[in-house]
Amino acid sequence: MSTTERSRVRRLPDRASYDRDTIHAILDAAPVGHVGFVADGRPVVIPMLFGRDGDDIYLHGSAASRLQRSMARSLDVCLTVTLVDGLVLARSAFHHSMNYRSAVLFGRAEAVPEAEKERALRAISEHLIAGRWEEVRPPTAIELRQTAVAKLVVEEASAKARRGGPVDDEEDLALAVWAGVLPCAPVWGEPVPDAQLPTGTPPSPSVSALRG
Amino acid sequence: MSTTERSRVRRLPDRASYDRDTIHAILDAAPVGHVGFVADGRPVVIPMLFGRDGDDIYLHGSAASRLQRSMARSLDVCLTVTLVDGLVLARSAFHHSMNYRSAVLFGRAEAVPEAEKERALRAISEHLIAGRWEEVRPPTAIELRQTAVAKLVVEEASAKARRGGPVDDEEDLALAVWAGVLPCAPVWGEPVPDAQLPTGTPPSPSVSALRG
Repeated sequence: MSTTERSRVRRLPDRASYDRDTIHAILDAAPVGHVGFVADGRPVVIPMLFGRDGDDIYLHGSAASRLQRSMARSLDVCLTVTLVDGLVLARSAFHHSMNYRSAVLFGRAEAVPEAEKERALRAISEHLIAGRWEEVRPPTAIELRQTAVAKLVVEEASAKARRGGPVDDEEDLALAVWAGVLPCAPVWGEPVPDAQLPTGTPPSPSVSALRG
Repeated sequence: MSTTERSRVRRLPDRASYDRDTIHAILDAAPVGHVGFVADGRPVVIPMLFGRDGDDIYLHGSAASRLQRSMARSLDVCLTVTLVDGLVLARSAFHHSMNYRSAVLFGRAEAVPEAEKERALRAISEHLIAGRWEEVRPPTAIELRQTAVAKLVVEEASAKARRGGPVDDEEDLALAVWAGVLPCAPVWGEPVPDAQLPTGTPPSPSVSALRG
């Protein structure tokens, strides 16, 4: 991954990083990415499932019919993932902010060859819930053909994050209002068994592990 | 808001909605949106804070230097928000899915006139944490000038959602693996007071209300 004018973080550059491990960690923690592409000269952004196997990033194409159709040829895309970590509540409206981590990857989406599809789908599955792939029936050849997957050939990438408490103006510190951070995190709830599951079937190890 | 080929949901159209209230409810529940635009012919997607006041949607511009620069003229944008509601865990890899709600709005971002800026910033603040605006020091004229806000003039919009359990193939129902839904929701944690806050200052009503 390289850095040019396109991916260089211009606003608040002290919040930026171009480190591969930092970018991968943000990708790995986000269940959904937002993929942007240009259709008829105008921007389209679609939420997509994705996965990573080493440096290879795969996009689950079924969510994006337009993307699917375009994938016969390679297509410029931007994959952005964002983790909201908390609200930063200052004493003035102006200094309110958000703690977050985000990664922005520029590249080209290319169709995944049939021979690579199972690896790609496994990466997407592992990304969402590690270990599940081994517990369930693997895809048949017909199912693989029916599933569109794209590989994101990354050209540039950057990460950005804000952490810590509010930064208030000195003269606002005496204001009688609570200030600080309200943390936010996605939480997995109680598993809801399928109606046709035999009563008493325990959640599989992948489900229990994800709930921690 | 109208519907044309651009916003018509083509894949799994039974999951789609064009109802204004449905779209607004999804927007209101998402802390962050992903805004796509075209720069030098290529797609860029940036996470942005946003707010809504009736039908008016405002984008907080400070996150996007490129967007800010472009806002002198009006700019085609796509605002997409996604709420992840759970993992849909089927008995086969192929039928795994995600429960989610998403809204995709196509339109143009236009700079907000100075006279409308305070209303716009208030809408963004209320969107993140209702009632906070009244608790804190309002923005000064200088702070308002320093803050970039755009209005999203919506041309088309659609919503899409998946709900419910896995839909397995009949012949997979006997497989001995747990299937169902693992719900997911963002949860607000324990407020972390600012280091300079007098000990014992209670969280303000807006903070307590958000935690529920």
